[in-house]
Amino acid sequence: MTTYSIAVLPGDGIGKEVMPEALKVLKRVGQLCGIGFAFRHFDWSCETWLKTGRMMPDDGMAQLAQNDAILLGAVGYPGVPDHLSLWGMLLKIRREFDQYVNLRPVRLLPGIPCPLAGKKPGDVDFWIVRENVEGEYSQIGGRFAEGTPAEGVAQTAIFTRLGTDRILRYAFELARGLGRPHVTSATKSNGLFHSMPYWDERFAAIGRDYPDVRTDQYHIDILAARFVMSPERFDVVVGSNLFGDILSDLGPGMTGTIAVAPSANINPEKAYPSMFEPVHGSAPDIYGQAIANPIGQIWAAAMMLDHLGEAEAGGMILRALSAVLERADAPRTPDMGGSAKTADLGEAIAAAL
Amino acid sequence: MTTYSIAVLPGDGIGKEVMPEALKVLKRVGQLCGIGFAFRHFDWSCETWLKTGRMMPDDGMAQLAQNDAILLGAVGYPGVPDHLSLWGMLLKIRREFDQYVNLRPVRLLPGIPCPLAGKKPGDVDFWIVRENVEGEYSQIGGRFAEGTPAEGVAQTAIFTRLGTDRILRYAFELARGLGRPHVTSATKSNGLFHSMPYWDERFAAIGRDYPDVRTDQYHIDILAARFVMSPERFDVVVGSNLFGDILSDLGPGMTGTIAVAPSANINPEKAYPSMFEPVHGSAPDIYGQAIANPIGQIWAAAMMLDHLGEAEAGGMILRALSAVLERADAPRTPDMGGSAKTADLGEAIAAAL
Ligand SMILES: CC(C)[C@H](C(=O)O)[C@@H](O)C(=O)O
Ligand SMILES: CC(C)[C@H](C(=O)O)[C@@H](O)C(=O)O
Repeated sequence: MTTYSIAVLPGDGIGKEVMPEALKVLKRVGQLCGIGFAFRHFDWSCETWLKTGRMMPDDGMAQLAQNDAILLGAVGYPGVPDHLSLWGMLLKIRREFDQYVNLRPVRLLPGIPCPLAGKKPGDVDFWIVRENVEGEYSQIGGRFAEGTPAEGVAQTAIFTRLGTDRILRYAFELARGLGRPHVTSATKSNGLFHSMPYWDERFAAIGRDYPDVRTDQYHIDILAARFVMSPERFDVVVGSNLFGDILSDLGPGMTGTIAVAPSANINPEKAYPSMFEPVHGSAPDIYGQAIANPIGQIWAAAMMLDHLGEAEAGGMILRALSAVLERADAPRTPDMGGSAKTADLGEAIAAAL
Repeated sequence: MTTYSIAVLPGDGIGKEVMPEALKVLKRVGQLCGIGFAFRHFDWSCETWLKTGRMMPDDGMAQLAQNDAILLGAVGYPGVPDHLSLWGMLLKIRREFDQYVNLRPVRLLPGIPCPLAGKKPGDVDFWIVRENVEGEYSQIGGRFAEGTPAEGVAQTAIFTRLGTDRILRYAFELARGLGRPHVTSATKSNGLFHSMPYWDERFAAIGRDYPDVRTDQYHIDILAARFVMSPERFDVVVGSNLFGDILSDLGPGMTGTIAVAPSANINPEKAYPSMFEPVHGSAPDIYGQAIANPIGQIWAAAMMLDHLGEAEAGGMILRALSAVLERADAPRTPDMGGSAKTADLGEAIAAAL
C-alpha cells in the first residue's frame, strides 16, 4: 500500500472548520482504494503571528518540504494585516516551492442555485490556469515622499519570459489533454503599456507550437463581462497572477457559491510539494458557527489525489459530492440555500463514496 | 440661448456608426430645451495613425481645449497596436486634460434580457467611480535582457496621495449627494504589497471626514463575485484605474449588454473640457453592418448635458430611452435580442423626447 505524507495546514478561521471534513473524506477513500495517508498537522496561523511575529517557524519550509503534498485551509484573520499573513505563509509557500501553476475549475454543480439565468450543470464548465508566482504580485516597490503632500507608492509588476512561457505552455498542454483544444488569454495590453503587450507576444509565440489549439484573447474588462454573458464559450482560460485571481473568484461566484471551488498550486516538475486549498478565504464573518461549506476543501483534496497519481480516488470523491448535491434532501450549508452544518455535508460525502 | 461648443470625435469602427445617433438626439433635445450646440468634427482615428504615424495632429490637444466638452466614439482598430492608438488619443486626452474621475453607472434598463436570474430594473443600480489618470495604467517600465532567456518586462504602478485622495473624496461626495451614503472600495491589499495597502490607508483616512457615509471594502476577486451574486448591495463603488475598468465592464455585462453603458471622464475643476464616451470599444467584428447599439453613446451625451449644467435636458434623454425600451415593439439591436439597425433605435429615442 502506498502511503502519502500530507502536510495539513488548516490555517485561520473556517479553514479550521472545513479541514476535518476533507480529512474524513480522504481517510474513507483511502480505505476503499488501499491508499495510506500520514497526516502531519501544522497549526501555523495568524495566532502564531500574534504570538511570535511570524506565520511559521524558521525551519517551516524545510518541514513542509518533507511531504508529498500540502493541504491548506485558509490564511488571514482580522488583527494581522493581510499582506503580512499572506506573504508569510500562503504566498511564501507558492513562491518558495515554485508552484507556478494555479489550476482552478469553474464548474456549475448540480443542486446549487445559480445566479445566472437559465444555466444548468454542463453549461458552465471550464478551467482557469493562473500564473502563480510572479507578475503583479510583487514585493518590489515602496513609498516615496512619505508624510508630504507629494507622497505616494510605487508597485512594480515583473513578467519574465521563463515565467510567462511556462504558464502559457501549461495552458496549451492542458487544453490538448482535455480534448478541448481552445485557449483564451486574459490581457489588458491597451492599458498596461509594458507588461501585457509582452504577455500577448509570448501567447502568440507559444501558440505557434500548438497549431491544433484554437486561441483567442480578450482584455480583462470585457472578458469579465463575457464570463457572465456567455460562459459556454470558454474551455481553458489563461491569465496572469492578478487576472487569474479575479477570474477564478468571478467564475465560482457565477456558479452560485465560491465556497465549492478548489485551487491547486502546482509545481509540475515535482521538485517541491504542491499545495491544495479551497478558493475561499478564512471568512471571519461566519467562523465559529460550523456552517462553512466544506466542498471547496474536499474538492481540493480530490485534486491533490489527481496530482499524486491517484486519479481514480480523486474521481470517486468528485462523483460522491455530485451525487450528494443531486439529492433533494442533501444537507446544504447556508451559502447553498440550506441550514446544514459543515460536518453534516462532510459526513454525507464520505458516506456516499 | 446658451450654445455649447462640442468636440465630436467618432474615432474608429462602430464609433462612427453610433455617433450620428447621439448628435441626432442632442439636436432634438436642444430644440426642445433651447440649448444650442456647435459641433466641431474631428476625424482622428487609427486611419490617421496609418497615414501619419500619429493619432492626432501636433496641435490636437490645443484644438480640443477650445471646446466645452468632448464627445468620443471609440478608439482602436486592427492594424494599429492597441497600446499605441489608445495612448495616442483616448488615454492621452484623459491624462492631459486631468480627467481624473471616470464615472460609470451600472443600471439594468427595462426591456433588456438580463443574464442574472430574477433581476428586474431597480435591482441593479449603482455607480462606479474609477480613478482615471494614474495607478496601474502607466508608461513606466520596459523590457530587460531582451532576446536572452532572462528576458522580461517590468511595469510600475504609481499611486499618489493627491491622486488617491481626490478620487476617494469624489466617491464620498457622490454617495452623499445621491442620498445613498455608502461607499465600497475595491482593493487587493493582500496580494499587491505596496499599492493597495496604501489605497486602504487613504480610504480609511478620507472616510473619517464622512462619518455619515457607511463604508466597506472587498478584495477585487471576491468583489467581482459579489457583483454577480448580490448586485443589490452596492451604491457607489470606488476603484483604481484597473479595478474600476474591470468592474465597469463586468457591471454592464451583468445588465445584459455593455453597449448601453456610458462613461464620463471628468475634470471636476473644469480647468479642461471633460469627455463623454460609451464604455464599449470599436467592435471591428460588427463594424460596417450598422447594427451597433447607440444607447451607450446617447447616454454618454446625456451625462455630458448633466456636466454642462443642463440636467433637465440630460434627464429627458434618459427618460426617452427608457420609454423606448419599455415598448414591446421597441427597435432592438442584435445585442438586445432584436434585429433593428443603429439608426432605427436612434430615431426612436429622438422621437420619444
Ligand atoms: C480602451 C481602453 C484603454 C479603455 C481603458 O482601459 O480605460 C477602455 O477599456 C475603457 O474602459 O474606457
Ligand atoms: C489570499 C490571497 C493573497 C489569494 C491570492 O490573491 O492569490 C487568494 O485570493 C487566492 O486566490 O488564493
